[in-house]
Amino acid sequence: MTLNELAHAVADEVERNAARLRVSVSKVAGARVIDCGGAVQGSLAAGLLLARACLADLADVVYVPCPVAQVGGPAVQVTTDDPVRACLASQYAGWQVSAGKFFAMGSGPMRALAAREDVFQHIPGKEESAVAVGVLETHKHPTEEVIAAIVAKLPPVAEHLTLLVAPTMSIAGTTQIVARSVETALHKLHELKFDVTQVVSGYGVAPLPPVATDFVQAIGRTNDAILYGAQVTLWVRADDELLEHIGPKVPSAASKDHGAPFAEIFGRYNGDFYKIDPLLFSPAEVEFRNLKTGRCHRFGRVEPALLQKSFGLTS
Amino acid sequence: MTLNELAHAVADEVERNAARLRVSVSKVAGARVIDCGGAVQGSLAAGLLLARACLADLADVVYVPCPVAQVGGPAVQVTTDDPVRACLASQYAGWQVSAGKFFAMGSGPMRALAAREDVFQHIPGKEESAVAVGVLETHKHPTEEVIAAIVAKLPPVAEHLTLLVAPTMSIAGTTQIVARSVETALHKLHELKFDVTQVVSGYGVAPLPPVATDFVQAIGRTNDAILYGAQVTLWVRADDELLEHIGPKVPSAASKDHGAPFAEIFGRYNGDFYKIDPLLFSPAEVEFRNLKTGRCHRFGRVEPALLQKSFGLTS
Amino acid sequence: MTLNELAHAVADEVERNAARLRVSVSKVAGARVIDCGGAVQGSLAAGLLLARACLADLADVVYVPCPVAQVGGPAVQVTTDDPVRACLASQYAGWQVSAGKFFAMGSGPMRALAAREDVFQHIPGKEESAVAVGVLETHKHPTEEVIAAIVAKLPPVAEHLTLLVAPTMSIAGTTQIVARSVETALHKLHELKFDVTQVVSGYGVAPLPPVATDFVQAIGRTNDAILYGAQVTLWVRADDELLEHIGPKVPSAASKDHGAPFAEIFGRYNGDFYKIDPLLFSPAEVEFRNLKTGRCHRFGRVEPALLQKSFGLTS
Repeated sequence: MTLNELAHAVADEVERNAARLRVSVSKVAGARVIDCGGAVQGSLAAGLLLARACLADLADVVYVPCPVAQVGGPAVQVTTDDPVRACLASQYAGWQVSAGKFFAMGSGPMRALAAREDVFQHIPGKEESAVAVGVLETHKHPTEEVIAAIVAKLPPVAEHLTLLVAPTMSIAGTTQIVARSVETALHKLHELKFDVTQVVSGYGVAPLPPVATDFVQAIGRTNDAILYGAQVTLWVRADDELLEHIGPKVPSAASKDHGAPFAEIFGRYNGDFYKIDPLLFSPAEVEFRNLKTGRCHRFGRVEPALLQKSFGLTS
Repeated sequence: MTLNELAHAVADEVERNAARLRVSVSKVAGARVIDCGGAVQGSLAAGLLLARACLADLADVVYVPCPVAQVGGPAVQVTTDDPVRACLASQYAGWQVSAGKFFAMGSGPMRALAAREDVFQHIPGKEESAVAVGVLETHKHPTEEVIAAIVAKLPPVAEHLTLLVAPTMSIAGTTQIVARSVETALHKLHELKFDVTQVVSGYGVAPLPPVATDFVQAIGRTNDAILYGAQVTLWVRADDELLEHIGPKVPSAASKDHGAPFAEIFGRYNGDFYKIDPLLFSPAEVEFRNLKTGRCHRFGRVEPALLQKSFGLTS
Repeated sequence: MTLNELAHAVADEVERNAARLRVSVSKVAGARVIDCGGAVQGSLAAGLLLARACLADLADVVYVPCPVAQVGGPAVQVTTDDPVRACLASQYAGWQVSAGKFFAMGSGPMRALAAREDVFQHIPGKEESAVAVGVLETHKHPTEEVIAAIVAKLPPVAEHLTLLVAPTMSIAGTTQIVARSVETALHKLHELKFDVTQVVSGYGVAPLPPVATDFVQAIGRTNDAILYGAQVTLWVRADDELLEHIGPKVPSAASKDHGAPFAEIFGRYNGDFYKIDPLLFSPAEVEFRNLKTGRCHRFGRVEPALLQKSFGLTS
């Protein structure tokens, strides 16, 4: 099965359980649009399915007690044996979907159909498939114009498009973002020119933050859950020298912008996302377990106080 | 599907796996009675299914490592996107089943069929259904007289009754009680006149105590697991002022009786359950995540030393 | 279903998902051989299935956040309501498979078919079954000679043999070993002449160590995960006096060899496994919950510093 077929099966499961999951399914210009938290309430369960669709169902995603005791609530645990395809060919939000005033970060396996991003020059995953599945992080329902803009970038073979949609400011949207603990580690490694195909399996846990109501707080908390709360373990086949050299740059602590809640950093740069140090976007803690040598390299640390501040937990 | 149909499907699953689950299935006056720990050993797995039936299968229930490190053993984690129907219309033990010398706390979705309790004036859930499912906390097998007493309070439409039965002093009975972390938070909120329909989703974890052998120790430990060990997160749409006002009253620490193992409190009132401060019955820690404002309010704290004392853990 | 039929169904699930699990399936002398980590990469998911097959599918096995915070990565959680059959009749590696230069520790329910080990005099589980399933801990693919040596010890009724194979030095092999937390507690109890049929249910968690690349490091880390990291809870029906007497001898701390990484102990005895104190092989922490009296007895403790040293975690 293709990545898109795998995600399509998850979307079918979401549709079958729409009422219980508090999602709504509609047709827009021939595409199936599943709203998981824009005009609807959504749910914790929808968040897990949204994350699984986004990962092309190549990862297990479950709620577990938060390992950062000071924070409380559940954490989102991700386990994958196909980290590059699950996280980089599918889950990474590398497709900026825009049409008129509409803008959304696009992720999910439809990226592997379009395969226009540079990352597909370096990783496996590019594919053909009659179905296409994407995830849009937005509070607006995609219009016919948006669908057309997406379809225009997909190969003609992709006859059936499904979009799962949820804003950052929703229960399901929050879950699907903090399910990106392994993905952010992989993406940072890719940015650091590490050959990510050396990553064999991945495991990550990140605290689920309270759902925010304004955009800055929402991206603040979800980013902080990763930057200051995510703990990732990667099984790799690589050279220890390289891991020792590149490893310290992987956790968020390696960035000059590390150390304040993300909303504050965002403000410091007057809301210009692209002025923030790109090396900031990675988990709090990353452990490499080298299958080639048996050595273990751990970098970074969680920051409970910053999480409490970000999440508005004062007790 | 109705709440009772959902629970009925879980009961069918229990029956199909009776041997493995160490439960026994019998017919009493036309009703299916599934003993999960009275005359039989029962099991950890039966406890999860018993809890799911009690919650009308509207929650996930799993064992996880206990977040209170001093206690050890598993904890019971509950996740629900339908907390009011799952916990209040179904799981809450609001039906005192008595017939002759028989007495048991009754819970499960049959309560939503009878719908005689005052709580059904304030919450959704009342329903009609051809099947009825109840959970009885008792060490006695229900007699024909007990079945008749239950059936008498159900509408005629309910043709098929299933009762799942387990004493507090059993493995499965202990699990199903400590699966009530979210329920006790909701019930306490309802008692405090909070409109519980504002609670959108719930997550809770509580340590699984050692199974007791006498009644006082059994209700002592299971209550302590909630009072001093349960950590609950609620996603709500409410006013922050109200949450700030009512919140401090929600955890068990708000009660004047808080601070001693429950068995000791019970003795203090000469075993008169109804003299105990009703506000005591709630989780150790409750966190409100307000979807309306993005604010987070946390109240209460776990009490590891009291749990260790209650569970008889001296090392 | 027999233990072997239960494990056979798990093996079928492994075969159906061979590509995703990164395992390979071949036929050797009529037997189905599933390589989970010798010539193939294997996976975290294959490790769970390998553990389940080894436990005759009588236990739940999942990854959870490691309760020993200093170690990180996932832990392997095992829950069983049939601990004696799952762990001793099946999972215990009591069959030393040798043929020519080939040697492997054999486990899984095929042991219950051969039933040649002394332990089967003391426990239930011995069975007849048309299918046979075994797990071999080895980096060598079993030859026709190996298959013949195994088949020779099985009753003629066992017509279909499946072997799941993984070296200690593989992802799946590491998982299946640290899924032995409950098993090591039971085996130690059996060695101490405790009647293990008194153990009703079991729950255990042990950290998943980094995969090693040399044999001594591999058995060192996997043993250390149990000896210094496993926390086991057993529900028993026994006399408290006996539990108080025998309990302190159960955790690894009772052994004179306790206190150093296993690889170091191994070296101390010049690599002679059989000179190591057999009482060393047991979990770090064991808690007995006595269903007969309600009392709780906990012995031993985890040793985070030793785990960090063993796993090569210096940060």
